[in-house]
Amino acid sequence: MHTTIPRDKNNDYSGEMAQRRRAMATAATGADLKHVGHYSLDPGTLAGNIENFMGVAQVPIGLAGPLLVNGEHAQGHFYVPLATTEGTLVASYNRGMKLLTAAGGVRATVCDDAMNRAPIFIFDHALDARRFGEWVKENFHHIKAHAEATSSVASLRDIEQYMVSKFIYLRFNYTTGDAAGQNMVTKATHAACVWIKANYAPGLNYYLEANMATDKKSSRINMLHSRGKRVTAEATIPNALLEETMGASAEPLYRRRMMSTLGALMCGAHNNGAHSPNAIAAMFIATGQDVANVAESSAGFSYAELTPEGDYYISLTIPSLIVATYGGGTGLASQRECLELMGCYGSGKVYKFAEIVAAVALAGELSLASAVVSDTWVSSHEKYGRNRP
Amino acid sequence: MHTTIPRDKNNDYSGEMAQRRRAMATAATGADLKHVGHYSLDPGTLAGNIENFMGVAQVPIGLAGPLLVNGEHAQGHFYVPLATTEGTLVASYNRGMKLLTAAGGVRATVCDDAMNRAPIFIFDHALDARRFGEWVKENFHHIKAHAEATSSVASLRDIEQYMVSKFIYLRFNYTTGDAAGQNMVTKATHAACVWIKANYAPGLNYYLEANMATDKKSSRINMLHSRGKRVTAEATIPNALLEETMGASAEPLYRRRMMSTLGALMCGAHNNGAHSPNAIAAMFIATGQDVANVAESSAGFSYAELTPEGDYYISLTIPSLIVATYGGGTGLASQRECLELMGCYGSGKVYKFAEIVAAVALAGELSLASAVVSDTWVSSHEKYGRNRP
Amino acid sequence: MHTTIPRDKNNDYSGEMAQRRRAMATAATGADLKHVGHYSLDPGTLAGNIENFMGVAQVPIGLAGPLLVNGEHAQGHFYVPLATTEGTLVASYNRGMKLLTAAGGVRATVCDDAMNRAPIFIFDHALDARRFGEWVKENFHHIKAHAEATSSVASLRDIEQYMVSKFIYLRFNYTTGDAAGQNMVTKATHAACVWIKANYAPGLNYYLEANMATDKKSSRINMLHSRGKRVTAEATIPNALLEETMGASAEPLYRRRMMSTLGALMCGAHNNGAHSPNAIAAMFIATGQDVANVAESSAGFSYAELTPEGDYYISLTIPSLIVATYGGGTGLASQRECLELMGCYGSGKVYKFAEIVAAVALAGELSLASAVVSDTWVSSHEKYGRNRP
Amino acid sequence: MHTTIPRDKNNDYSGEMAQRRRAMATAATGADLKHVGHYSLDPGTLAGNIENFMGVAQVPIGLAGPLLVNGEHAQGHFYVPLATTEGTLVASYNRGMKLLTAAGGVRATVCDDAMNRAPIFIFDHALDARRFGEWVKENFHHIKAHAEATSSVASLRDIEQYMVSKFIYLRFNYTTGDAAGQNMVTKATHAACVWIKANYAPGLNYYLEANMATDKKSSRINMLHSRGKRVTAEATIPNALLEETMGASAEPLYRRRMMSTLGALMCGAHNNGAHSPNAIAAMFIATGQDVANVAESSAGFSYAELTPEGDYYISLTIPSLIVATYGGGTGLASQRECLELMGCYGSGKVYKFAEIVAAVALAGELSLASAVVSDTWVSSHEKYGRNRP
Repeated sequence: MHTTIPRDKNNDYSGEMAQRRRAMATAATGADLKHVGHYSLDPGTLAGNIENFMGVAQVPIGLAGPLLVNGEHAQGHFYVPLATTEGTLVASYNRGMKLLTAAGGVRATVCDDAMNRAPIFIFDHALDARRFGEWVKENFHHIKAHAEATSSVASLRDIEQYMVSKFIYLRFNYTTGDAAGQNMVTKATHAACVWIKANYAPGLNYYLEANMATDKKSSRINMLHSRGKRVTAEATIPNALLEETMGASAEPLYRRRMMSTLGALMCGAHNNGAHSPNAIAAMFIATGQDVANVAESSAGFSYAELTPEGDYYISLTIPSLIVATYGGGTGLASQRECLELMGCYGSGKVYKFAEIVAAVALAGELSLASAVVSDTWVSSHEKYGRNRP
Repeated sequence: MHTTIPRDKNNDYSGEMAQRRRAMATAATGADLKHVGHYSLDPGTLAGNIENFMGVAQVPIGLAGPLLVNGEHAQGHFYVPLATTEGTLVASYNRGMKLLTAAGGVRATVCDDAMNRAPIFIFDHALDARRFGEWVKENFHHIKAHAEATSSVASLRDIEQYMVSKFIYLRFNYTTGDAAGQNMVTKATHAACVWIKANYAPGLNYYLEANMATDKKSSRINMLHSRGKRVTAEATIPNALLEETMGASAEPLYRRRMMSTLGALMCGAHNNGAHSPNAIAAMFIATGQDVANVAESSAGFSYAELTPEGDYYISLTIPSLIVATYGGGTGLASQRECLELMGCYGSGKVYKFAEIVAAVALAGELSLASAVVSDTWVSSHEKYGRNRP
Repeated sequence: MHTTIPRDKNNDYSGEMAQRRRAMATAATGADLKHVGHYSLDPGTLAGNIENFMGVAQVPIGLAGPLLVNGEHAQGHFYVPLATTEGTLVASYNRGMKLLTAAGGVRATVCDDAMNRAPIFIFDHALDARRFGEWVKENFHHIKAHAEATSSVASLRDIEQYMVSKFIYLRFNYTTGDAAGQNMVTKATHAACVWIKANYAPGLNYYLEANMATDKKSSRINMLHSRGKRVTAEATIPNALLEETMGASAEPLYRRRMMSTLGALMCGAHNNGAHSPNAIAAMFIATGQDVANVAESSAGFSYAELTPEGDYYISLTIPSLIVATYGGGTGLASQRECLELMGCYGSGKVYKFAEIVAAVALAGELSLASAVVSDTWVSSHEKYGRNRP
Repeated sequence: MHTTIPRDKNNDYSGEMAQRRRAMATAATGADLKHVGHYSLDPGTLAGNIENFMGVAQVPIGLAGPLLVNGEHAQGHFYVPLATTEGTLVASYNRGMKLLTAAGGVRATVCDDAMNRAPIFIFDHALDARRFGEWVKENFHHIKAHAEATSSVASLRDIEQYMVSKFIYLRFNYTTGDAAGQNMVTKATHAACVWIKANYAPGLNYYLEANMATDKKSSRINMLHSRGKRVTAEATIPNALLEETMGASAEPLYRRRMMSTLGALMCGAHNNGAHSPNAIAAMFIATGQDVANVAESSAGFSYAELTPEGDYYISLTIPSLIVATYGGGTGLASQRECLELMGCYGSGKVYKFAEIVAAVALAGELSLASAVVSDTWVSSHEKYGRNRP
């Protein structure tokens, strides 16, 4: 026999409702849920963030830093909250931050910014699809006006067109201020489609999405055209500093980098770097990002050079980093605190935050690569990660 | 001026050390960290899970279910904890679970199981690499013995060989019991390499990894050959039930599925489904998985059919689902409770858990697709996701 | 001892020089080259097409058709020359043409047209690359003028920008009339780069190409954005006709199509269809196209539907079909004859030719699929392909 | 009105039949076909190579070389026939060959060898597919015996298994002697499937192929696991020789190589090199290979190093080079002569030929890269390629 989860029609998100749900779950399964039920956030603030609230996951946060960032928006030394249960992770990032800070810091640059929604329009024949595409180009300003009327923030930058069979996919690219913007662009594109249908042909068939956006999935189109922020972190590390801090010289680091790129090329990886998703996931959990976006945000391009002086230039480009400093989970109790720790909560902060994430990720690239090259990878996990089989 | 984070040489992971770190961070940045400092987990248990512990992220958990699963290992009705800050997510999964349960439940099957580590061996010429590859085949049983001597659990199933330029990558495939096994296989492969080097040639050069594993990155090789569990969830939903519960018929659901597959084919997505990483990320956070593995686990293959009766067969195959029911974060306070809620904590439970994750993901595929097809996608987010811009 | 190949400084491309080269080769290797030396083309016309001319490959041509095409540019019944040494190929295409013609013909539509060249610009930091990109947008009309000044035909449509690390790739997209245009766009883009360097910064570093074009390689960017012509062929075949002509019904054809798409999705194929490169290679050889472009032109998207009447809609989109009806090998002796056979030689014919190629390719898709579904694949090769082990 | 192509029921492939077809085509279209009708091959030998024979394409062949190859099978100086209509191509390859020969020649190694056929087996549920896969493993030796009974040459090496949804794809990997083997493996796998069906379950459903082979398409699986020969060519070029012969130093060649790899990584190219398909297509046409296989054979991995002495190590790995020295078009008139020119006709020569193709391709990689780096790319095409717009 199974029971229905208590639901509250008024969305009051009370602690009492959460408690009733835990009690029901315990009764049904025997599981104690006392840690789940231990929280300081105010359930009353959760409308719009979760349904059937029953408590919290307590995810440990380690503090790393300081990391010196020389971005356009992030400038100075930052302490970074990393929420993870993976031993060694915080220690490894911390080591990389120390190196990068000693080397004069990380340059970070947001190169592009777009949140996308991509409806498919369905025709009888390819020729009809192409003609529709021409009409869309001619009517861009009308479409833009109707899309943007749904929000005070979303701005429709352009519409890419992709034709195949008797279909055309329109990929709407927006900027969305400090929000990640997925819902904003869905709503705006929905309004645009309603207008298109009314004005192109009342019988027009479309679906609001058919995998050209591509939300919460890793894809080549997002590596080429960006979803969220396209951000590059770069640094040049003196060889002497590398040897002293990491026990690894620039030359073998560089050689192995080339081999890792070759491996990624061969196996069709969407990232030729080391492990940027570790930084991304840990920061996303700590700061209330949409963690499923690790799928898109996991893509990366790593590029290195040996300078004529024998030092090590390394850069990491994250082509689809989906982040927010406003809306979503960013305003929740511990999440907001973690954003404030980096001076990244609220309006006008999202590029700053994107720069910090990329800089942190770069720290991890250097630390893990050094461990592999200096053959301390296994021993460091023996030391820190003994809970991790 | 920036301060050094207080570090503790004895790894005592005390609440007092965490408090000192928060105090230091507050002093340096002005950020209040009281919610971060509010937790019931015992810091003393965190050795091996985190360094520089300073508190927790409180991630809201919504309860969904029950979901009827007819797996080999998971059988019965399950309540599912989803940790997320994304409004609509729990409601949407819950709706899909209701549908699937009413339809008689979800079949779930683990089809493959492998955790990988892939060292690169470096030679002067391609011919040397090929000859080494032949030697590796001949010496598989010795290599296996030395790899497996490092653990009571890891079992070396086979070694794939990939040759390019003057290199050979050996991809070691292990089963690792109920642990995810990344560290276990690193250690085992390290031991194997030490033995190989001693026995093949003392001057042999290799690196323990160069992006053929590929850890924490989405890659084609892992979609072909699996990393973690390869698991399929499938169900057949009567059309009448679809119409009644979801307001969407099988036929348009099916047609749009084909278009979504076409979109994924065109844009080079590693998943032609809807949004399985939403389920995966939410369950990973709740249950103490390594959340960065959302990168690999985000891959998916969706396949649908209309039955002769007009009903809807749909399956989701997750080729690289990286999960554990033992080790890592699975034993932490709230995380263990969430696993126990599904009867999935500890030894002998990992296939059961993999089946449940896939079944939950399938529920979300149906729910989101129905919303798109019935044009309620925007309105449902208006209702539930109003905090999500 | 080896000899130098006779070279002629005046490029006189005489039959006598060809004869001397064959004689030298025969002397050096013992190979008789009498068939290579048998040709009717005039060596004097070969300047610009080949160096060190020594004779010809005699590639057998089979005649297929007629195929009814209902394109925008190709309208009517066409006979198609297929140059191949693969038994069964002509018979199979012929069978598909018969089916399509009986079904009322093939619709064919050119949806996009672009030839590309993509220089990389090299900076010290990502920020410099982004700023340069902004300057390029502002100076598009100047760049266009300088690029187009190099040719009476090339028209610069737009410039896509791709940023990574400290680099920016500019992908120049041109239309090039009836020529394939690779050399034309190289020259035009070279001129544009010279102007850019002079006007942006004399010290500007760039290379004219670094694999974002991507010439003679299969790539995702060309599947998304086209290189050459993006062309779709489509047809709806009555089920009764399928059964009668092919011994295969629409329903199993459709089911297997879905499975072939799933296979392509899983294995990372750049074509989910059957074998369009067979048509493309055979027509390219016959008509003097650049056959190495089979690399790009081999990409394809296949999409099918069962109509409510049980008939079979099928389309094939070739996203990067690189064809010419002017220049290159199109004017050579037998090549020009083969283009004239289809009314496709010379100016204003390239869209017509692209439509025919796509229509022919579609014929082969249907024929091979029917053979697999009706299990006559092996037996037909037994009959026609007995020389092909 | 359109006419039927004259067909001959007895496959006599006479010149008279060819003449009748040309006459019919000329009558129908007005095209003169006199060059098509000019050939020295004996139509009577064409059974098994073509249907509806009507004449030949005369494709110009340029002679390049000599190229010094130091392979396992190809040893010595080779003259290479390149059939192309693309000006500059022969000159460019010739230049690369001169360089490589002066540098001491090209090492070439065949690293793997497999021709594939991949039937899909269809079940009700994933679990059934997995169980069938286990049965296949247990019965491998029976399956092998039945597959190999169809041919005196084909040897079934192994069967890879790929599971998705309720399906399992079995990828049969064979060696096929000196033939390319596509038909051989189709026939062998067909026999294997008949045996499997009879012995596993009479109601078993399968199709002989569903895009996991993947014939005539570029795919990731073939880049990982090879289709045809996996062959690497490598050389180390002294910097002084580079500068003298190519006007390009090792250092900028190397830097641009890294950028080209980055470009390929970003745009999802199946080849990070320069233009290996130019060599491949030109040699395939000259020697009677199946030219549509340029699709698979166009994949490539380029890898370079600067040696401590400042010289340039470069390698090219072609993972799926599909070649034959026996069967198919290899025995036709001019095609056989071209194979004999390289000592590659007939039995026991296929590895030798594969090594030469890879070595030639490497020559072109160096030549084009040098032209780009020394900025002579445009000017050389001005000189040689004036017919190529």
